[in-house]
Amino acid sequence: MKSYEKLINSINKSGSRLCVGLDTTAAKLPGKLKGDPNRIVEFNRNVIDATAEFAAAYKINFAFYEQYGVSGMRMLEETIKEIPEGIFIVADAKRGDIGNTSEAYAVSAFEHFGADSVTVSPYMGVDSVEPFLKFPSKMVFVLALTSNVGSKDFQRLEFGGKPLFMHVIEKSRSWAEDDTVGFVVGATHPDDLKLIRAAAPMNALLIPGVGTQGGDAEATIAANGKAPAIINVSRDIIFAGNDANYASAIHAKAEYYHKLLAVR
Amino acid sequence: MKSYEKLINSINKSGSRLCVGLDTTAAKLPGKLKGDPNRIVEFNRNVIDATAEFAAAYKINFAFYEQYGVSGMRMLEETIKEIPEGIFIVADAKRGDIGNTSEAYAVSAFEHFGADSVTVSPYMGVDSVEPFLKFPSKMVFVLALTSNVGSKDFQRLEFGGKPLFMHVIEKSRSWAEDDTVGFVVGATHPDDLKLIRAAAPMNALLIPGVGTQGGDAEATIAANGKAPAIINVSRDIIFAGNDANYASAIHAKAEYYHKLLAVR
Repeated sequence: MKSYEKLINSINKSGSRLCVGLDTTAAKLPGKLKGDPNRIVEFNRNVIDATAEFAAAYKINFAFYEQYGVSGMRMLEETIKEIPEGIFIVADAKRGDIGNTSEAYAVSAFEHFGADSVTVSPYMGVDSVEPFLKFPSKMVFVLALTSNVGSKDFQRLEFGGKPLFMHVIEKSRSWAEDDTVGFVVGATHPDDLKLIRAAAPMNALLIPGVGTQGGDAEATIAANGKAPAIINVSRDIIFAGNDANYASAIHAKAEYYHKLLAVR
Repeated sequence: MKSYEKLINSINKSGSRLCVGLDTTAAKLPGKLKGDPNRIVEFNRNVIDATAEFAAAYKINFAFYEQYGVSGMRMLEETIKEIPEGIFIVADAKRGDIGNTSEAYAVSAFEHFGADSVTVSPYMGVDSVEPFLKFPSKMVFVLALTSNVGSKDFQRLEFGGKPLFMHVIEKSRSWAEDDTVGFVVGATHPDDLKLIRAAAPMNALLIPGVGTQGGDAEATIAANGKAPAIINVSRDIIFAGNDANYASAIHAKAEYYHKLLAVR
């Protein structure tokens, strides 16, 4: 099955656009687990168990695992194995390099880790993104307008009356079919999201920034409309609990966001 | 010792700007090693032995190791241990993410792997680069004008009469001291390199694109002038030999580039 189709099925099955971000780091583990990298996989397993009924997708940010080197890579592999079949997986790696190098990154994300999709930085242009697009059954989320403060530094610079992020979207759409290339658009920019949806009506969107980053969920859903999108919440769900009962705190938080981000 | 100082010392000691890129992938290993990921560290050790007298720096592209997951991370760790003390190390990872995530990437490159510098993508702006700059004894090479064909897609878009890559250089210089922030500028653009040196006279440059990518070494050296720069060659050196005598072919190729990129 194509990843785009898997994404739509997974959104429909969960009834929500909720994507749970597994940005796990030892320093933030709850209770007795705090500070122990060896408990990360166990924690992730409990997070997945507590949230799987609510999640349309899981997003795994590679940075948090890479910081532990060899054992971090093992945590990544083991965590991905815990995700129930049918739930969409985003490898949030923000990669992008010259052709032969991006090819190696694509092999890593899609073949080695078995992700359905990967996030890619557009700065280096067509030949840095193409190797990822050569897996046409998979999906690529190109960074367009990110959720962070620094998104204004370059992404909003205007060329020919259009901001850089719109150039990124238009050019990326010319590189692949709409069901292969998607975009990252922060929930912190609902007005721009409307313009982006007008330019890219059916491309899937990965929307971070709800939760700790303060993005507006309702405005985001309204701006996105009916097209396929997943809205990511990381820290506000996975670090919801501070003691031995953390799993039930996480369950409750995921239930809250499942409803907030429901497909109506 | 600050990384910037280590870089200058290493260039002076080797008498050349040569940076050897360890873009090792099993499919390209010579002779009987071909196709065997378990021989990558052994191969890298032989490459380092054959080139250490010529190299001012080694650049390790993380992609080529990540594609092998857990064992790839081990290869990375073991390869970095083989690099003689005093030779500058670039973690070519092209990272960049929101603050807490870039922080994890910085820990990975600088603390876990012990690199002197890391390559960073500027697309997400200030808060994606800052966590790397918080290691002021280390160095960051921000992607400015890359060596590949796709560099024209976005990096050359003009905003207010200036191409995006010049905005990146000017803004990045305002974020840190000149001895902490450097830039990636491809050897495939010697005319632009002159303009970049005018705008950033003392920032270190990492210059890829000589060798397989066809950049002009002499024009590059002339455009750079006396300021600190390392010029990377990967495939053309490390895959110079096809049989059991590959180490001597690599030694000869490194000697050739050492001379071509000599500090005069």
